[in-house]
Amino acid sequence: MAMAEIGRRGETGVDRAAFSPEDRRARRLLYEWARASGLEASQDAIGNLFFRYPGRRPELAPILTGSHLDSQPSGGRFDGVYGVLAGLEAVQSFARAGVRPARSIEVVAWSNEEGGRFAPGAMGSQIFAGVRALADVLDVHDAAGIPLRRALADTLAALPEAAMRPATGAAGMPRPEAYLEAHIEQGPRLEREGIPVGVVTGIQGCLWVEYQVRGIAAHAGTTPHEYRRDALEGAMRLIGRLRDRCVARSTSCRFTVGRLLVEPNTPNTIPGHVTFTVDFRDADAAAFGMLCRQLLEAQAEEPLALEVRELFRHPPEMFPAQTVGVVAEATRALGHPVFELVSGAFHDALFMANLCPTAMIFIRCRGGISHNPLELAEPNDVSAGAQVLASTLLRLSSS
Amino acid sequence: MAMAEIGRRGETGVDRAAFSPEDRRARRLLYEWARASGLEASQDAIGNLFFRYPGRRPELAPILTGSHLDSQPSGGRFDGVYGVLAGLEAVQSFARAGVRPARSIEVVAWSNEEGGRFAPGAMGSQIFAGVRALADVLDVHDAAGIPLRRALADTLAALPEAAMRPATGAAGMPRPEAYLEAHIEQGPRLEREGIPVGVVTGIQGCLWVEYQVRGIAAHAGTTPHEYRRDALEGAMRLIGRLRDRCVARSTSCRFTVGRLLVEPNTPNTIPGHVTFTVDFRDADAAAFGMLCRQLLEAQAEEPLALEVRELFRHPPEMFPAQTVGVVAEATRALGHPVFELVSGAFHDALFMANLCPTAMIFIRCRGGISHNPLELAEPNDVSAGAQVLASTLLRLSSS
Repeated sequence: MAMAEIGRRGETGVDRAAFSPEDRRARRLLYEWARASGLEASQDAIGNLFFRYPGRRPELAPILTGSHLDSQPSGGRFDGVYGVLAGLEAVQSFARAGVRPARSIEVVAWSNEEGGRFAPGAMGSQIFAGVRALADVLDVHDAAGIPLRRALADTLAALPEAAMRPATGAAGMPRPEAYLEAHIEQGPRLEREGIPVGVVTGIQGCLWVEYQVRGIAAHAGTTPHEYRRDALEGAMRLIGRLRDRCVARSTSCRFTVGRLLVEPNTPNTIPGHVTFTVDFRDADAAAFGMLCRQLLEAQAEEPLALEVRELFRHPPEMFPAQTVGVVAEATRALGHPVFELVSGAFHDALFMANLCPTAMIFIRCRGGISHNPLELAEPNDVSAGAQVLASTLLRLSSS
Repeated sequence: MAMAEIGRRGETGVDRAAFSPEDRRARRLLYEWARASGLEASQDAIGNLFFRYPGRRPELAPILTGSHLDSQPSGGRFDGVYGVLAGLEAVQSFARAGVRPARSIEVVAWSNEEGGRFAPGAMGSQIFAGVRALADVLDVHDAAGIPLRRALADTLAALPEAAMRPATGAAGMPRPEAYLEAHIEQGPRLEREGIPVGVVTGIQGCLWVEYQVRGIAAHAGTTPHEYRRDALEGAMRLIGRLRDRCVARSTSCRFTVGRLLVEPNTPNTIPGHVTFTVDFRDADAAAFGMLCRQLLEAQAEEPLALEVRELFRHPPEMFPAQTVGVVAEATRALGHPVFELVSGAFHDALFMANLCPTAMIFIRCRGGISHNPLELAEPNDVSAGAQVLASTLLRLSSS
């Protein structure tokens, strides 16, 4: 709640854009908390901020855990920051209890996960994992024309106490042994099931497609139905066919038409042109691949014309069974039911999975609401998730 | 084509807003043409402009014919102006041939039919027919803040040669014996049938309804289908049900969803709110009344919420069989097939039908296109329509 005061909007909202003055204040506060526990601070060239709790054998690859401090422009108090603070509290509790595992544990706050100010999102974890180059993003500008290069330099300079660290792979910088991320679910399943903590088995694949249906705009009063080329009627039939095909093939898929624009969009003109997007997600790689092909091969219905354009695609990413199994053991040992689920949203974990064994822990959130000031997780669930994280960190860092 | 030079946009477009300098130049040109044939000019308080060809018995109620000179902002060369010029040419031909029927014939250019600059449209004919009061419209402003009162005064003053005339019903101002209006079809039927001239039997009833469907906006990736309240899915099912009901009950109806807005309208958010309009038209009064009730009584589909709001309604207006019959006789006598159709668009005739027996003549137009610079009627069809109008005027003014 103290962190949520930084960038607070209204009663419970948060606006903390990446590399903004609010982001810097949040990093400073996090640093002060970590320093009080004697953790070693460092930051890398994209501003990812690390706090190291040294293990008994510091030469071994560390266990990494964290999430992000930045928020959506009209965000809430939990998305991202929860995973960072749960990681910090876990290692603080180890320090207080005098528990020192073999491997070091590092808590990380990834830079710019949301991507609302500087695109793309998950920038810090992508660069850390080596799936994107730092040079690719330095010249990105925000809406006010400020280059990322400058906002990043200001952010790094604002925390001189954190030593600069080299990239993964440099001398003394081994790949992490594992990465763990705790996060609010951002969906309704744990709440509906009445379960505080979920074991995340992977992240759904995601395809975005834009469809443009072209008919002929004409007068609504003077044009009999048999002469019409109504782009909206055609779009609605196409949406129905695409949805039916996806749902028939995969019961776990998610098919959403979130954006739809009609032209000319006046009450007495038959629509001549409709643009809509499909957001399609599936956790099953085979179903995802086959349905992506079918969604992209959609055909126009005569006499309408159709253009289909792929906007974005990421295949499903399933976490290693062994790492997920350690989370499940910790969950069971703490007396919670083991409820496995797939993440529908993207997280830094999606990119870290390219670098090292990765898993996630979800906690229940009210109504599945996020990216919204109404975002809420109950204190008991916040606690339960941090305990599962601590227990998992201990198991992994002791091996 | 000379008239189309006034307010010309590009090759074939016309922008001639009501009471604009272009409208004044069009009125002036019309006056010059009418004066050359010896017609008497007059205008009334709303700027309707009349040219009288006196009959042998000037004390009898006249036959009135005409349409309008104003256009849509991106209009064509035929909508409106054709009916005025066809009427003028008819009486000019009578004058040249020395034909003088019993009744006087008056050619009228109604003020502000399109309503694009000052709402509502069909202002001149509504006030002439007594269905709207002049005082109701004088304080209407255009988008630039100019009051109609001033634009109208400037328009009246710009043609001092036309004497001011009192309203219908004043001494010496009987209701017209009949009103005839020639117009381009603005629809595709005559072209598809290969027929130059259509006999218009009436004007469809028209209902505009706005529907607001409320669901819950949620994350497209994290929300399984069974937990969704997708306002767009609900709106599409509702549109399907409403359309099926209308089409099943009335094969001649026209059902159009021309405007549809999705909120928040981003690819990865399930729509929480959809607003759409239905434009419903039918020529059959019983079917129109029943389907209006059903469209307005639409129910929400659980768990979505629905608000239904009537925006506009005008019942079907069928012209008297006797007047339509005279048009049909004239059409047949000139060697054209008699093809009866109902107007899907509104015209000044809709309001004149409240005052006196009314009928309309349509001519074929390319592709049914209007309110568009591509609007086109072929010279032979323009001619055929004017001949049918002249023959009908002669029959009615001789009775």
